[in-house]
Formats: sequence, C-alpha cells, structure tokens
Amino acid sequence: MRDGPPVSAPAYRAAGVDLEGSDAVKRRLARLVESTLGPEAVGGVGGFGGCYAIGGLTEADPVLVASADGVGTKVLVARWANRHDTVGQDLVHHCVNDLLAAGARPLLFLDYIATGMIDPEVVLALVEGLARACRADGLALIGGETAEMPDLYAAGDYDLAGFVVGVAPRSRLGSRAATGDVVLGLAASGLHTNGYTLARRIVIDGAGARPDETVPWGGETWAEALLAVHRSYRATVLPLLDDPDLHAVAHVTGGGFAGNLPRVLPGGLGARLDRSAWEVPQLFRFLAEAGNVSEEEMYRVFNMGIGMCLVVAAEAAGRIADACALRGLPPVRIGRVVEEEGVGWE
Amino acid sequence: MRDGPPVSAPAYRAAGVDLEGSDAVKRRLARLVESTLGPEAVGGVGGFGGCYAIGGLTEADPVLVASADGVGTKVLVARWANRHDTVGQDLVHHCVNDLLAAGARPLLFLDYIATGMIDPEVVLALVEGLARACRADGLALIGGETAEMPDLYAAGDYDLAGFVVGVAPRSRLGSRAATGDVVLGLAASGLHTNGYTLARRIVIDGAGARPDETVPWGGETWAEALLAVHRSYRATVLPLLDDPDLHAVAHVTGGGFAGNLPRVLPGGLGARLDRSAWEVPQLFRFLAEAGNVSEEEMYRVFNMGIGMCLVVAAEAAGRIADACALRGLPPVRIGRVVEEEGVGWE
Repeated sequence: MRDGPPVSAPAYRAAGVDLEGSDAVKRRLARLVESTLGPEAVGGVGGFGGCYAIGGLTEADPVLVASADGVGTKVLVARWANRHDTVGQDLVHHCVNDLLAAGARPLLFLDYIATGMIDPEVVLALVEGLARACRADGLALIGGETAEMPDLYAAGDYDLAGFVVGVAPRSRLGSRAATGDVVLGLAASGLHTNGYTLARRIVIDGAGARPDETVPWGGETWAEALLAVHRSYRATVLPLLDDPDLHAVAHVTGGGFAGNLPRVLPGGLGARLDRSAWEVPQLFRFLAEAGNVSEEEMYRVFNMGIGMCLVVAAEAAGRIADACALRGLPPVRIGRVVEEEGVGWE
Repeated sequence: MRDGPPVSAPAYRAAGVDLEGSDAVKRRLARLVESTLGPEAVGGVGGFGGCYAIGGLTEADPVLVASADGVGTKVLVARWANRHDTVGQDLVHHCVNDLLAAGARPLLFLDYIATGMIDPEVVLALVEGLARACRADGLALIGGETAEMPDLYAAGDYDLAGFVVGVAPRSRLGSRAATGDVVLGLAASGLHTNGYTLARRIVIDGAGARPDETVPWGGETWAEALLAVHRSYRATVLPLLDDPDLHAVAHVTGGGFAGNLPRVLPGGLGARLDRSAWEVPQLFRFLAEAGNVSEEEMYRVFNMGIGMCLVVAAEAAGRIADACALRGLPPVRIGRVVEEEGVGWE
C-alpha cells in the first residue's frame, strides 16, 4: 500500500533516504491501517492500490464524492508542541466534514505524509491519529504514501495531506436552499484547521507562548488550545442528509463564513448572519486582541466558534435543531438566507 | 473544489498567506480542470467535493481501487530546470500505472499542491501537466487542494501529491502468477519518478550539470534527460487486463525489481531475471559510473530501463508481446517465475 523503496541500499541511504528505517515502520503502520478495515476492504495491505468493494452500495444512482485536503500549518503547531497523534484526526475530520457538506457518506481514506527524514515514532503517531479518526468515522484507511525528501523538508518537518471518497445518491447533490431558510450553526471545537499561519504569528511568535503554559483564560494549556481536534460532524449530520428540510450544508473552513456559506447557496441568494447569536470562544477573542486583528478579518480567517452551517427550511428549524441536540450538539440559529449574494451581518 | 481562503484579508496576507493571488489563480485552474471532465463528472467545479457518477459502471461486482503518490524530489529537478509543466504528468502517469498493476481502470484524480508562496504561473504549469495527463489517460480531475504554507516550504519550493481512484471487477483482483510464467518488461522513458535524491546528488551536485547542457551521450539536455515524463502504460496494458493469460502486473517504482515484482507474486514464488536481456539506457550507465554506485544498488534504486513488468503464461508470451508491440511498445522477455522467493539474477 505504502509505496516506496522497501529495501536497504547503502549509497542511497548516504544520499539521505533511509530505506531500512522506513521498512520497519511500514510493518507497524500496516497493523494500524488494518484496524480500520471492514469487509469492504478487499485485498489487504501491500498491493499497488487499496481496494474497496462497492457492490453492496445501497444509494440509488450512486455518485462518488471525493476531496483532497491538508491541515495547513497546524503541522507546525504539532511540531512546536511535540505532539503528533492529533493532526491525523484533524485531517480525517476535515475531509469527512467536506463530504457531509457535499451530501455524501464517507467510505475510504488515503493519506500522504512527506518529511525530510522519516522519524518512525512521528510517522506512527500521525497514522495513529488517522486510524483513530477513520475508525470513529467509519472510514477504511485503504492506502497512503510516506515520502522521505531530505532536500525539500527540514529534518523534523513534515506535511500531511489526505484524500477521502464517499458516496451519495445523485438526487441528493446540489443545494435546495431558498430565501427565508434558517441557518443553524454547529459549534466548532477550536480553530479546526484554518488560520494557523496567523494564529502562530500571534500566539507563538508574538506572545511567546510555550506549549505547556496555561492559556490566560485558564483550564487548558496553549498546546491543548491550539491542537484541539477538528470536530467531526458525521454523527450529527449524516443521519440528516436525507431529510428533505435540510437544504444545504457548509463546512466553515478557510475563508470563514463569507468564503464557504455562499458555496452552497444558489446564485442570487446570500446569507444574513447575526454575530450576537453565539458567544465567540475565548481563543478567538485573545487572537483578535493580542494580534490587533479587525473584526472583519477575524470572521474571514477563522470559524469564530461555528464549524458547520446547516441551511434548513424555516418551519423545520426547531425540529432539526432538536435532532442535532439529541445527538449531543445543539445548534444556534445564526441567520437566514436572503435575496442578496454574499454574507451580510446584522 | 480547491478549498482555501478565497478572499482578501490584509493582516492574513502580512502573515504570509496571500489570499488575493490564489483567488485569481483558482479561476484559471477551474478552466484547466474542466477540460478533463466528461459526463460522469456531475456537479461542476467549486463544491465541497468533486462528484463522479458511477451508475453506468459495467464492471461486475465492482471494487474501487485507490492509490496515493508523490513524485519525490523530481519536483526539485523541475525547480532546477525551471520547467514545471511535466511533473504533473509524471504524477498522473505514476498513479495510473499503479492502478493498472492492481488490475483497475482509472476513473478520477485529485491533486495536492503545497508551496511556500503561491506563484500563479508555477501552479498553473503544474495543473497544466496534470490536466494534460488526465485527458490523455481518460481521468477526470475532479478536485484538488492548493495550500500556501510559508513556514514549512521555502518561497519557490513546492510538493505535489496525487490521488487516483479506479474500478475493477472483483474477479480481476489478485495475482494468478505461477511457476514457469514469463516476465515481460516494458521500456521506461527515463528515471520515471524514483531515485531522484541519488540522481540529483550525482548529476547536479557531483557533476555540476546545468539544465541546458547537452548530456555526455548527446541528443538531449540534462533537463530533458532528468525530466523525461514517466511513461503511462495505460494504452498498452488496459486492453490486456481481461486476458486470462496475463497473470500479474508490477509497476517498477521505488525499490526497483526486488521491491516491486514480489508484491504481485503469490507466497513462495519469486522471479529470476536476466540482466543481459535488455540494454540499460545511457542515463543509468552514467549514474552508475559518475556516482560509483554498485550494480546491485542501481537495480534496487532505479528502474534500469524497464518501467512495467507483465507476468504472463509461458505459452501466451509471444501473443501478448505481439499485442503490446501492436500498440507501439514491444516488450522484452526479461525472466521467469521460479519457486524461490525474491528476485534473483542469472
């Protein structure tokens, strides 16, 4: 599954690619990967491609929905905190949420890890996080690639990208949002995976925070606050995807509300949101103040505490909110769909 | 499709992420992407996931086959030669060949481009290469992610990874190789995407080659020799996948013959290959001599001129070789399957 040179080669190692180390890691990786595999994953680990049987799909007129993503410079926060088993979860959950926004049920996942020098413990921690999230979200981790590129990445640096495939019945694709619909917001667990270049400048470079230092508002360390795992909305949103009153779903990622909500609204429509509808978490307030970042920019770079928006028929808003609450995530009414493109604030 | 902040934000730009530039690029990227889309790609460009309808698949008991890959430090050769429109082809062809080795027909592709600072022309050249290869290989480029990570990548550096999904009838999965089978080798077009860390050390650092300088054996420049596009074997191998006498296919990537041929042979079996069966191209001979690399290591790091191996029933070897030749790629008989694990040489 994980391609790459599986054998020892002295001169190649001298040139910076340690083939022996990566072979031992691969065996341990295989066990983690196997922990995510159900009966659909046919063919096991080690072939030229990961296999996933789709003969049993129940979706009518099925459409594969796929997405590629990274976690941005949250990987540099992981390195700063020397904690590598959560960014894999961030990546999987980010990908899963994108599929939910597209109306799809997640099926399988593949990762790409690139590093300057393979540190077996770091790679294992990364895949541990990926596997944990895949198990939780019901995804088969059917493949991946670990690339050692000494001249592109610094020794301890790495990048992490992921690729998810899901399925939707064709009838579920596209937005059914209409004027007057209510926008429900589901709480984020933290910064999720966006805005880290700015957040790192403010917290690490600017305020000189240390990973094990308690945040000014107490209750957690800076490492915990900045590495809080991107929430997966699968358990809340997947059961709602066939609800005719759920008209659209938007994942609030890079670009914030303005960059993401309009992606799921038909042309000519926009959203009017009410900032006072929810309390912005302390971390975002700290970033705005310590970084002297304007409110407008805060709402464009960060999720401000809302990670997912559900656009629902007004008359069903209460019922759908209750359904979310029953699954542990009570939403907030944050606005409505209006006949003016873009996102406005009241 | 390409996630990421699509709006302008002054302080975020000051922190190193230029959102404005990437938005303009996205529009031009969308046009390239659309050039690869057929009727199966439903939903267009810009949603939270790329969509590919599979209601029309004709494979019995269909299995999705997926693979993730990079092009290793061939990206650094592209930067050295300042030529960025071929590594995208390398990536797609590498992925397609992996799927063929797994017995699958390629359907869709997604890319991940990470860079220190988005250079619109470079990103466009990369996607131009991806789109060109996707069109040639019949793949829909239904998504991708372009990530700007100033503190992880140097300004002009980038990494490039790809994800491919194909389909195979379940009956086609797995190896049918048996003792006595013949191994046919299909010529590589160059180094393909493996061994570049060692090749760069020898050619660029060691011999001080310049991109526009003619190679010692004449006929091409160093840039042309090192950036020769990874050959796609789709046109040759795809029509053979249902041939009952084609028992296994191996893509010769990192690890060479020893690292890849055993991956498609049943336990207990191996291959005995004959080095004198084909002429090793000049580039590999130069690398061995200039880098003082042992023959053993050369065959473990590089493809040595054979990019794909077909394991075929002995009595059908002539017929299958003729079929390949008819499609423009006459293979070489390079060995046979034996009752001894691993790859031996005669």
